[in-house]
Amino acid sequence: MSNEITIPSPADFHVHVRQGKMCELVTPQVAKGGVRTAYVMPNLVPPLTSTEAVLSYKAELERIDPSVQWLMTLYLHPDVTPEEIRKAAKAGISGVKSYPRGVTTNSNSGIEDYGVYYPVFKAMEEEGMVLNLHGEVPSDPEKNISILNAEVHFLTHLRKLALDFPKLRIVLEHATTSSAIETVSSLSSNVGCSITAHHLYLTIDEVAPQPHHFCKPLAKEPKDRKALQEAILSGNPKFFLGSDSAPHPLASKIPNLTHSEIGAAVSACAAGVYTSPILIPLVATLLESFGALDKLQGFVSDNGRNFYGVPVKEGDELRMRRITDEDKGIVRNTFKSEEIEGLEVVPFWLGKRLNWEIV
Amino acid sequence: MSNEITIPSPADFHVHVRQGKMCELVTPQVAKGGVRTAYVMPNLVPPLTSTEAVLSYKAELERIDPSVQWLMTLYLHPDVTPEEIRKAAKAGISGVKSYPRGVTTNSNSGIEDYGVYYPVFKAMEEEGMVLNLHGEVPSDPEKNISILNAEVHFLTHLRKLALDFPKLRIVLEHATTSSAIETVSSLSSNVGCSITAHHLYLTIDEVAPQPHHFCKPLAKEPKDRKALQEAILSGNPKFFLGSDSAPHPLASKIPNLTHSEIGAAVSACAAGVYTSPILIPLVATLLESFGALDKLQGFVSDNGRNFYGVPVKEGDELRMRRITDEDKGIVRNTFKSEEIEGLEVVPFWLGKRLNWEIV
Repeated sequence: MSNEITIPSPADFHVHVRQGKMCELVTPQVAKGGVRTAYVMPNLVPPLTSTEAVLSYKAELERIDPSVQWLMTLYLHPDVTPEEIRKAAKAGISGVKSYPRGVTTNSNSGIEDYGVYYPVFKAMEEEGMVLNLHGEVPSDPEKNISILNAEVHFLTHLRKLALDFPKLRIVLEHATTSSAIETVSSLSSNVGCSITAHHLYLTIDEVAPQPHHFCKPLAKEPKDRKALQEAILSGNPKFFLGSDSAPHPLASKIPNLTHSEIGAAVSACAAGVYTSPILIPLVATLLESFGALDKLQGFVSDNGRNFYGVPVKEGDELRMRRITDEDKGIVRNTFKSEEIEGLEVVPFWLGKRLNWEIV
Repeated sequence: MSNEITIPSPADFHVHVRQGKMCELVTPQVAKGGVRTAYVMPNLVPPLTSTEAVLSYKAELERIDPSVQWLMTLYLHPDVTPEEIRKAAKAGISGVKSYPRGVTTNSNSGIEDYGVYYPVFKAMEEEGMVLNLHGEVPSDPEKNISILNAEVHFLTHLRKLALDFPKLRIVLEHATTSSAIETVSSLSSNVGCSITAHHLYLTIDEVAPQPHHFCKPLAKEPKDRKALQEAILSGNPKFFLGSDSAPHPLASKIPNLTHSEIGAAVSACAAGVYTSPILIPLVATLLESFGALDKLQGFVSDNGRNFYGVPVKEGDELRMRRITDEDKGIVRNTFKSEEIEGLEVVPFWLGKRLNWEIV
């Protein structure tokens, strides 16, 4: 049993670092979690639909932590024209993220129909930009579409896009079902798939009683979790880490009871699991739990970098060691803003023990 | 469109009224929700496994509200012998509730194997007692059993019990799946099925972001909700109201963040939805929403009473009228103990509008 791991600089190909004071709080945690290259989501308020807005956001992230390589994305939206794609590509923006309308945090500007975006995808294909898909369709009770099968219903869209744009690199983000793993595996090498850390651990049984485990897509059945684990065990280079680390203020993650003149009411909980501060040690701990520690380098370093064409920086390795002291390694702290009273984020794995720490 | 409803005294064939101060708080709400006969669950701490314990609990409920007819149950457990069954039947106890081990609130004493209870079921069959089944098997990731399919996996047990004890009245409690509705419909008339109010409204989409909607069994897909609604629309007398109204202190329904010497931790949320205070107006509102208002009397009065053999009291009708004022009918209040600081229960439908009120 190895007690030391050294891997080329890990990359997280799906991270939310938010904006404003939350951004100040969570952005420095990306590097602390062992990540050297971070692929940043554009679902801010308002969404990032112009090259200028993305570059301004990138400058902000570089100001907060210049040590991380920030890879940027546009938010697929009518404002994102083929001309904007060419401009974005020239400016070094890596990809475009598509949110089906209304399915997750700040997705009200999301798309309803891919057909109208075919000229945009064509331009992206020509410019070598990546299309990142939040792979869920909106719920529709009449068609029995719910958050349980929203991803499976999306897979027909993925297949069609992959066939229609064989040279466009497409990523199915945060896969959660055995059907998604099978579909991605069956498609050609232009289609990749990110897998989060938390979906390697959670099933519906751990999500239903715990809003801090509630995210979109929802964690599904044990057989689905097993399919994600087996995708990693297979070593298939299509599968790589995208944490979908998605911080929300504590107050947004719990059902708050409010009282007003018209009576009491209770709020719904925001969707998102926050893993950035512990990400690579967590992934190592999880992979080891299902016998995949030898696939760590492929999953967190090589596969995603190869798919995106983002080389490792020379000499930029991450070293971890096994935590042997039983009292150590427990995730003990929430993350609080020093400036904003009450801005506190609860990390995944709080109170649980990690087996690995960054040296 | 009718603006008045008069139905024979409604019965709730599955209610939790708890113990101690919570019992004092919630027991008077049963009658306020329009219920005249309440079938009481035995999952207290410790569970009610003796005739004496059940009778003592019944006396307590009669002291708090003598206006309600309290029908009592034993908790299936090794202490419940065939002799105890005969004693309980003589004492007027109506049924025995079976909890698979560990699946819901206070079910740690629940059963693992029905075979050992066959002599008990035989005695119940002879004495005319009813067997109430919490129809879920425990989760088992190795077998892909989760809270999503725990009810469907239970149905083989239901079928076997129904065949092995053709004269034992058996109730599948709080059905949540189309498979459960089909199975109950296919079995002979000794098998009935209770349906809650909240499962006529919720699907997984409303449960995942809202711990106040989290209960066992979990609300499932839209097609499952539709199957429950159609069971009522069919008028099949096997299906009747059992609210599973299950109050928990507010503090148990939210993920509490605690801090100690070893660090922060976060609690899981208790399973249960509380409907008692608004039950019959809520059921009327829900049934009307899917065109089943003409089935209200069958669902809340006749079907359950006929199955259990509990006649209506002469002249004991419930009258309701339609709420026409748009500002009225909103569920505005939580329920608080006057004696215990912080003991507060959040009802289902808080902030939403009911269409009917009790006259």
